[in-house]
Amino acid sequence: MELEQIKQAIKKVREKKPLIHHLTNLVVTNFTANGTIAYGTSPIMANAPEEVEEMVSVSNGLVINIGTITSEMVEAMILAGKKANQVGVPIILDPVGVGATSYRTNTIFNMLEQFKPTVIRGNTSEMARLAEIPWEIKGVDSVDNGEGDRLAIATKVAKKYHVVAAVTGKEDIVTDGERIALIANGHPLLSEVTGTGCLVTALIGATIAAEEDHFIATVAALTYYGIAAERAAIHAKGPGSFAVQLMDEIHQLDLNEIDQKAKIEWVNIV
Amino acid sequence: MELEQIKQAIKKVREKKPLIHHLTNLVVTNFTANGTIAYGTSPIMANAPEEVEEMVSVSNGLVINIGTITSEMVEAMILAGKKANQVGVPIILDPVGVGATSYRTNTIFNMLEQFKPTVIRGNTSEMARLAEIPWEIKGVDSVDNGEGDRLAIATKVAKKYHVVAAVTGKEDIVTDGERIALIANGHPLLSEVTGTGCLVTALIGATIAAEEDHFIATVAALTYYGIAAERAAIHAKGPGSFAVQLMDEIHQLDLNEIDQKAKIEWVNIV
Amino acid sequence: MELEQIKQAIKKVREKKPLIHHLTNLVVTNFTANGTIAYGTSPIMANAPEEVEEMVSVSNGLVINIGTITSEMVEAMILAGKKANQVGVPIILDPVGVGATSYRTNTIFNMLEQFKPTVIRGNTSEMARLAEIPWEIKGVDSVDNGEGDRLAIATKVAKKYHVVAAVTGKEDIVTDGERIALIANGHPLLSEVTGTGCLVTALIGATIAAEEDHFIATVAALTYYGIAAERAAIHAKGPGSFAVQLMDEIHQLDLNEIDQKAKIEWVNIV
Repeated sequence: MELEQIKQAIKKVREKKPLIHHLTNLVVTNFTANGTIAYGTSPIMANAPEEVEEMVSVSNGLVINIGTITSEMVEAMILAGKKANQVGVPIILDPVGVGATSYRTNTIFNMLEQFKPTVIRGNTSEMARLAEIPWEIKGVDSVDNGEGDRLAIATKVAKKYHVVAAVTGKEDIVTDGERIALIANGHPLLSEVTGTGCLVTALIGATIAAEEDHFIATVAALTYYGIAAERAAIHAKGPGSFAVQLMDEIHQLDLNEIDQKAKIEWVNIV
Repeated sequence: MELEQIKQAIKKVREKKPLIHHLTNLVVTNFTANGTIAYGTSPIMANAPEEVEEMVSVSNGLVINIGTITSEMVEAMILAGKKANQVGVPIILDPVGVGATSYRTNTIFNMLEQFKPTVIRGNTSEMARLAEIPWEIKGVDSVDNGEGDRLAIATKVAKKYHVVAAVTGKEDIVTDGERIALIANGHPLLSEVTGTGCLVTALIGATIAAEEDHFIATVAALTYYGIAAERAAIHAKGPGSFAVQLMDEIHQLDLNEIDQKAKIEWVNIV
Repeated sequence: MELEQIKQAIKKVREKKPLIHHLTNLVVTNFTANGTIAYGTSPIMANAPEEVEEMVSVSNGLVINIGTITSEMVEAMILAGKKANQVGVPIILDPVGVGATSYRTNTIFNMLEQFKPTVIRGNTSEMARLAEIPWEIKGVDSVDNGEGDRLAIATKVAKKYHVVAAVTGKEDIVTDGERIALIANGHPLLSEVTGTGCLVTALIGATIAAEEDHFIATVAALTYYGIAAERAAIHAKGPGSFAVQLMDEIHQLDLNEIDQKAKIEWVNIV
């Protein structure tokens, strides 16, 4: 039954073709735009503080990714986030590298006081920082210390910020504080291409713009993406060809693949 | 005879290898640079207001694309545009998303008072906004309401701003206010890859830098690009592989392909 | 024996997986990040003046590339460069387009007074400008006037700035002012893809972070990259597919290829 909900969420994206406003980092703009077009959405990337509020107002979703923030970009993100809250546009926040510098950390905590995201997606160390649970970090990449505490981190982020929390890694954990899903789809080559985390954030942002159950929407995007990556890896000769084929697979994945390949463990569905 | 002119224009680009200065958006920098190198030009991307005038002065053409403008970028664009007019460097303007926000709309109209472009290239809704003819818009993407009024839009832009106007879409319309060409080359996958409109703008910018008849140059670039896209689509498995093959085809397209595949309708050649 | 040192340098990169902080240009962020991940490093791209010093302090290397500098970016680069000197993090500087505008030239000379790079990598015209030896320039691209003076240029840059100098082109020249290596690996398609020079700068930056002999490290990165390009070209159909395959080859190049394919001429090893 849950798999049916997953497929419905993806279908809603394809039918509604939501318009998503992205305030994202300089490294992944092109990859994110292409990945979200392939997924069935219309991306807008507009960063000027002068126009972000107007752009959010005509959008169906907002993606905020702090990978390469500057003071002007932070100003635009806060204006956009507040306006999104006012007009009811769902927000996904990707706290890239939070904990790596005090500027980055202070910025995220400031943002979380200024507007409320719908979903927060990060790797384990980033989400640990938001949960204020100790975790080893190496630059902007996470060092997995084991799977034991990741569920605690996800749950704390979900409850503390009243969001759907997605802690991604070899296994993805999604929770809204009550429902939990563990997703084991994906492929190691994802970690050999820059922006693959940013892209799944954007796909979640697209899905919560189309599917009102934001927990289901988040699980759907992660599962779809993981399966697309598994398929892309089959004929990949390395990270270059993998990235190209990932776009092709996101574009054309047959939803029946979800029935056959989804590896989701549902915990404590209430 | 016109096909011969088209081929001559492309040959001039390949021989002169013009140096083109791009002030473009953050999403398409890499794609545009690679596409214009493949086409036979040397791209320069330099955005600092401190240096754009000097860079324009040594360039053969200027591309201005407002996709992700900020106040500093607008300052640089106006400085570059004015200098280009002074030194006789042809300019192509791509009014990405004009009409979507008042900031974007005001900026374009301000630019058009500060400098005169040689060519303006946009989708139907963008060009309708410049022509001040009503048209439905969805974010930065155009919604085609039908082909009826597109010719009127192109003609009005051409006459109002004294430019060659290119209204692109399923069929491209090019006019200098007297001569008109309708180009039916291209492929639906172009709309599944970000920056494909921005790239054809850049290719037109390269061609008007090499071919003095700017109407012919614009038709040449659109036709060449459309045929390259058709060829790229043959073996594409989706938008990822299409984008890669589009680069390969732009790089090596045999000009005899233009004789065989060009779908151009010439109207009212004076 | 030198080939063994080359291979050891690459092995050190793969084992240490250095964390490299990049302050680079807007055109190549994605390509550079993917290329350096493929090479075995963790890239960080963080540009805000508020955080670059903290980010450098946790990094193993710093890459500074002035391709699309603005005043804010220059501020960040100088802060990062000074901090890197303080904490002993090696720096590679890529003076993209120096000589093309006075802003660019003044900025580079200002930077060279504010911090000391470990390696400088540029094309012939860029390095000639740093050496204050006349050389013809066309925009940001170099026009080779012949091979005669390139060695003099490299030697002068090395001695004047107390760096390892790498003058790249059809043949690459590397010198620390005493030892000299000439590398003839590479492929013409490298000049048909944007950012291939920026990427080799980044790979050198990664290698000097892992191998203390910075001359050997620089030769190693250039040789590895040239061989990867030769392999990538074998099945390439043009610059698009070449760029994709280059990533695949950087990722998986067998070090035994270096024994078989390296074309290095060692001069005056002291």
